[in-house]
Amino acid sequence: MAVSNIRYGAGVTKEVGMDLQNMGAKNVCLMTDRNLSQLPPVQMALDSLVKNGINFKVYDNVRVEPTDRSFMEAIEFAKKGAFDAYVAVGGGSTIDTCKAANLYASSPHSDFLDYVSVPIGKGKPVSVPLKPLIAVPTTSGTGSETTGVAIFDYEPLKVKIGIGSRAIKPTLGLIDPLHTRHMPDRVVANSGFDVLCHALESYTALPYHMRSPCPSNPISRPAYQGSNPISDIWAVHALRIVAKYLKRAVRNPDDLEARSNMHLASAFAGIGFGNAGVHLCHGMSYPISGLVKTYKAKDYNVDHPLVPHGLSVVLTSPAVFTFTAQMFPERHLETAEILGADTRTARIADAGPVLADALRKLLLDLDVDDGLAAIGYSKADIPALVKGTLPQERVTKLSPRPQSEEDLSALFEASMKLY
Amino acid sequence: MAVSNIRYGAGVTKEVGMDLQNMGAKNVCLMTDRNLSQLPPVQMALDSLVKNGINFKVYDNVRVEPTDRSFMEAIEFAKKGAFDAYVAVGGGSTIDTCKAANLYASSPHSDFLDYVSVPIGKGKPVSVPLKPLIAVPTTSGTGSETTGVAIFDYEPLKVKIGIGSRAIKPTLGLIDPLHTRHMPDRVVANSGFDVLCHALESYTALPYHMRSPCPSNPISRPAYQGSNPISDIWAVHALRIVAKYLKRAVRNPDDLEARSNMHLASAFAGIGFGNAGVHLCHGMSYPISGLVKTYKAKDYNVDHPLVPHGLSVVLTSPAVFTFTAQMFPERHLETAEILGADTRTARIADAGPVLADALRKLLLDLDVDDGLAAIGYSKADIPALVKGTLPQERVTKLSPRPQSEEDLSALFEASMKLY
Ligand SMILES: NC(=O)c1ccc[n+]([C@@H]2O[C@H](COP(=O)([O-])OP(=O)(O)OC[C@H]3O[C@@H](n4cnc5c(N)ncnc54)[C@H](O)[C@@H]3O)[C@@H](O)[C@H]2O)c1
Ligand SMILES: NC(=O)c1ccc[n+]([C@@H]2O[C@H](COP(=O)([O-])OP(=O)(O)OC[C@H]3O[C@@H](n4cnc5c(N)ncnc54)[C@H](O)[C@@H]3O)[C@@H](O)[C@H]2O)c1
Ligand SMILES: [Fe+2]
Ligand SMILES: [Fe+2]
Repeated sequence: MAVSNIRYGAGVTKEVGMDLQNMGAKNVCLMTDRNLSQLPPVQMALDSLVKNGINFKVYDNVRVEPTDRSFMEAIEFAKKGAFDAYVAVGGGSTIDTCKAANLYASSPHSDFLDYVSVPIGKGKPVSVPLKPLIAVPTTSGTGSETTGVAIFDYEPLKVKIGIGSRAIKPTLGLIDPLHTRHMPDRVVANSGFDVLCHALESYTALPYHMRSPCPSNPISRPAYQGSNPISDIWAVHALRIVAKYLKRAVRNPDDLEARSNMHLASAFAGIGFGNAGVHLCHGMSYPISGLVKTYKAKDYNVDHPLVPHGLSVVLTSPAVFTFTAQMFPERHLETAEILGADTRTARIADAGPVLADALRKLLLDLDVDDGLAAIGYSKADIPALVKGTLPQERVTKLSPRPQSEEDLSALFEASMKLY
Repeated sequence: MAVSNIRYGAGVTKEVGMDLQNMGAKNVCLMTDRNLSQLPPVQMALDSLVKNGINFKVYDNVRVEPTDRSFMEAIEFAKKGAFDAYVAVGGGSTIDTCKAANLYASSPHSDFLDYVSVPIGKGKPVSVPLKPLIAVPTTSGTGSETTGVAIFDYEPLKVKIGIGSRAIKPTLGLIDPLHTRHMPDRVVANSGFDVLCHALESYTALPYHMRSPCPSNPISRPAYQGSNPISDIWAVHALRIVAKYLKRAVRNPDDLEARSNMHLASAFAGIGFGNAGVHLCHGMSYPISGLVKTYKAKDYNVDHPLVPHGLSVVLTSPAVFTFTAQMFPERHLETAEILGADTRTARIADAGPVLADALRKLLLDLDVDDGLAAIGYSKADIPALVKGTLPQERVTKLSPRPQSEEDLSALFEASMKLY
């Protein structure tokens, strides 16, 4: 199990200036997106920097659902600034951008593709030391404050890919439930679906001892190592919280108990999947967001078409778990039960459909678009969606059930309509 | 939550040589105790060092239940050897000794009391860099592979105290269930009681937001921060494993499922209490072992009187939880239920006695000595036992219920006889 350093509590953001001082930081870069730069979470962090006499520059040009181009801009800013520490205040888009900026500013002679995962990048291991990065998540979804992953849209191929290395994991995550009050309801819902899928996928991922190849030298083993007894604890715990609190959190911004719990669940699921990995929902989600046409997501204050990450993963989940359930049906049934399905009379052979029904019911209850068709895809797009999934081997090979291109086609097709 | 890096699996000990190579270690110190030095766990680690061409020296003079004197000897060895990495293969005694050796060899001009906790030591923060330490636990108890704590008997005062700093936490814990096969049954039982009490005490410890003082600068906050939503997960999970597997693990050395699970539970509970802390069972245990007269523990292959740590904590547990239950009765009842008590008709006011009964039943089932009287203490010793508890403020102040000297007396008295 890899390390994650987090501190939780209402108002912990106010401590960020002191943490930076304790680290001896003198020239700090605070990253965020344009929308958040006007909101209280960023203000609270800035106040703390000022109060502690920390010099800083703000970069608020993070792109929501970042791209190689938007990463590059942030990297340029970081290189010029010669910062000695970073603070990321925002959702996964901000935290991931900040990880990339820190990495490439610390390794100024690397090409951008050097650290990007194979097969698109070279997947080089990181051996340079990075600067401290404190992540303050404002969504309850990615768990990026606990993971060594940074995801972006690679525009030349119109596909989402990532950089994965323990080296880019934030030094500290400050999990402050106060920030969840400001989230619009679709951001709560979509980022909550991300938590849901991190938990479900890491719990049902290929077990660590069945993964192959298994490099004999521990240093060569992937960060995503398959499900294991430790990630299982985090996954199940996060799933229980989602089951209990997600609907309440979406529906009532003042339900601080629900929103706080989802905020923690995001980090828990992050620690789980950061060690175990995710599989098909995530692997298939990358082309779903990468190939977006004109879909505009409600409540996302941005000027470009966008399929929010959480939505892009959850829309295929009923099809995916129907497909994978035959491998570890007990685990699939167990998660269905946690999500509220009555499994007393369910047969083990029904595990897939039972879980899929529980998921569909949750999505319908939360007014989620009716499948890929509702966000602009049709049958004609399936070959491109499949093609965009193939390079996602890093995750798809963690599916408990191996999948052919035909299987992937069928999964996309089954996800066109949900209800 | 603080960090803990662990790797789990049958045979992971065989990778220790490669891990050291990856760290660039060229001159390694392997620590263990005399008994273990003749057993397979140490052999497996040594084979791996040889196979990977790592130069090493063995120090097998670790004292079971270490003292300041035995720590000092190990420190001298470490200073002379100028090692660039350490491997500890053994129980808490070995791992703790190795932590101390690494610390003081890295800080050669410090006095021994500099880093020892107040009020007996000076409790100085550690600012020197330490060498990597890989811990390979062979008992299923202390969780020392995950904690920043090293405990020893301070002979001048005949009391157990500790060194506590995140800096001494092992770089990596290799949790290898194969080693559990060799443990004699009393070592399984006593170290299992340690896990039980780590879980129970950290789950019932004063919640983190009720602890005082609460230093405004995060760097000054203690490692033991009170119970919190993250340590709770580890504690409850460890407790469930103890409830399910401890008896089986004690009774049948070939029940690898039970022993493996207890081995993991030890690390889980360690991560929990390493963040939340422990309270009265541990605080009172230190004089119970420190003042030992002639008691010889069955199955412990040593030449001195000794109250094994796990036994010294568990003997007061029925009295302690009867005393603390009035503060968080629901949590006490919940743990009783996990331990197998029928709580359907229990009233909240009965939480303490219900949990105490569940504990007594477990101890009786596992043939544990009948209280402090059975290990050589009488009423006349109570003042000395109380006096030895008073300096344990680091933990006793985490008790959910404050306690006077009279309370402590009464707790020792109530623990003289259990059944
Ligand atoms: N690194 C990882 O481990 C990981 C894991 C999963 C997903 N991701 C990536 O993270 C990105 C998605 O991140 P996300 O879902 O956290 O959302 P986001 O960062 O894309 O933000 C979504 C929108 O919500 C707004 N917002 C965020 N917090 C707010 C708040 N408290 N109040 C009001 N508005 C707020 C933002 O301004 C933005 O408009 C995707 O690129 C995805 O691929 C990364
Ligand atoms: N650092 C921490 O976080 C922490 C926590 C709790 C306790 N402790 C301390 O740890 C010490 C107790 O450690 P422990 O309970 O792990 O036991 P131990 O290290 O004292 O070992 C007990 C006995 O068991 C033998 N043994 C150990 N593993 C064996 C195996 N696999 N096969 C056969 N024999 C084996 C040892 O040789 C020894 O004789 C105490 O000093 C206690 O205060 C430390
Ligand atoms: Fe995700
Ligand atoms: Fe202990």
